[in-house]
Amino acid sequence: MKSVSSLMEMQALADQSRGSHRKIGFVPTMGSLHEGHLSLIRTAREQCDDVITSIFVNPAQFAPDEDYEKYPRDIQKDTVLAVDAGSDYLFIPAAADIYPPGFSTFVTMDGISAVWEGAIRPTHFRGVATVVLKLLQLTKPHMLYLGQKDVQQCVVLRRMVKELNVDVEIFVCPTIRESDGLAMSSRNVYLSLEDRKKAPILFQTLKSARERIDAGIHECASLRREMESLLGSAAGVHIDYIAIIDGETLQPLDVIDRSRQTIIALAARFGTTRLIDNVIIEPALP
Amino acid sequence: MKSVSSLMEMQALADQSRGSHRKIGFVPTMGSLHEGHLSLIRTAREQCDDVITSIFVNPAQFAPDEDYEKYPRDIQKDTVLAVDAGSDYLFIPAAADIYPPGFSTFVTMDGISAVWEGAIRPTHFRGVATVVLKLLQLTKPHMLYLGQKDVQQCVVLRRMVKELNVDVEIFVCPTIRESDGLAMSSRNVYLSLEDRKKAPILFQTLKSARERIDAGIHECASLRREMESLLGSAAGVHIDYIAIIDGETLQPLDVIDRSRQTIIALAARFGTTRLIDNVIIEPALP
Repeated sequence: MKSVSSLMEMQALADQSRGSHRKIGFVPTMGSLHEGHLSLIRTAREQCDDVITSIFVNPAQFAPDEDYEKYPRDIQKDTVLAVDAGSDYLFIPAAADIYPPGFSTFVTMDGISAVWEGAIRPTHFRGVATVVLKLLQLTKPHMLYLGQKDVQQCVVLRRMVKELNVDVEIFVCPTIRESDGLAMSSRNVYLSLEDRKKAPILFQTLKSARERIDAGIHECASLRREMESLLGSAAGVHIDYIAIIDGETLQPLDVIDRSRQTIIALAARFGTTRLIDNVIIEPALP
Repeated sequence: MKSVSSLMEMQALADQSRGSHRKIGFVPTMGSLHEGHLSLIRTAREQCDDVITSIFVNPAQFAPDEDYEKYPRDIQKDTVLAVDAGSDYLFIPAAADIYPPGFSTFVTMDGISAVWEGAIRPTHFRGVATVVLKLLQLTKPHMLYLGQKDVQQCVVLRRMVKELNVDVEIFVCPTIRESDGLAMSSRNVYLSLEDRKKAPILFQTLKSARERIDAGIHECASLRREMESLLGSAAGVHIDYIAIIDGETLQPLDVIDRSRQTIIALAARFGTTRLIDNVIIEPALP
């Protein structure tokens, strides 16, 4: 395993790997690795010759009032975990190298980056798209591995890669969950013991909606009412949004169209900790 | 010579060329090739193994009231000229492939893209940066060739490539001029006979400023006054701007700092035809 912090060195190593006709898999992370990240690395290990994992807590995707400073960081533990999962390179750039003084170039997107997470966090996806484009230029991967937990991020990055013609294939890995169903997230460590006990209600709410859809309920207003009622039943949970949306446009649906992919996504706060989760309803076979 | 219109084919050819360790040079153009473009292609021919010239009149860099529709186009003539100058590939994508329906991803820049040309053409550099980033992903060049005539474009693209970590080296070729000093431009064909006779005043004004600077006049207000007076002496010329600016920040100077690169740039209209030109004052040797 090789740990790289220099941007030029990373790019030269990626170039060398490409020049040797090796298939590069890239897993971008903000560190604080959990089983979700490790499943991405393991999948990359299976599918590629060289696996690059980046660890970079990206200031551009945090708003000033968000948790950039207190975001959990543990490079030593992350290094052990990433190597065990099969990463060949750990790319750990410095923020001052990624965003040198006077930095002013951003990747922006209308529409899908301004709704849901983007409505609550207006510059979030601009920060995500910009840093991922930069990391893709630096690591030159054939495959980019993303987790389904951040489903809007997946949709935004898929659009970005397609519209900017970046020559990389995106592979989305399923959400990894704790035994009680809570989606793994680096932010779960913020939860109080009491809120940690309540948090599985997120996935329960999503599962319940999926069951209702499987049972033939396709009218979204009533699905959403049921979800609100279930999720709101946990004391002290503040619902940011419940979204029943088209899998590509992210536009809210009135009625679920089983010929297309539907996303059911939600965001809720437990005290000051904000968690998101989602399930995907794949198109029904004709 | 191979002419390519498919985006996927272009990317596959570029990948193949890179995989064979061939050095790729890329010359982006809007067609209507003149000696300026051809000098870029000839330079790429000297420095690289494979030379790709793109011909794409980029709608995203034209404002609705600009000359997108009437911009001169002659693919057949361009093909002959590009091949003669040494281009291996002509990449001629369709606008509908570069900007498919719903296209919403743009590269934006604060500061240097909002002044001078950007102040008069507010979405121009967003369109330029976006299309060039896309073309760089499609052609995967080692070298990108640009003409000094569009000096702000060179500065904007240099910043974009640096800040987005695109692995390409920019080579700027000097402005090619008609025998009377008029900078070659695809838009020169718009000039009336009478205006064509007046147009060399642009370069005369720039040359005169350079001579004054060489003679030790470094105070920019008086240099600008002299330039205004000379350029304004031609009847019917409307000056858009005269800029004496830092070569990197594009900020206007009070006094020329001979330890840094200075750009003297101007834009003027002859009737409805808008022309730009510039000279670069390189740092004096210490």
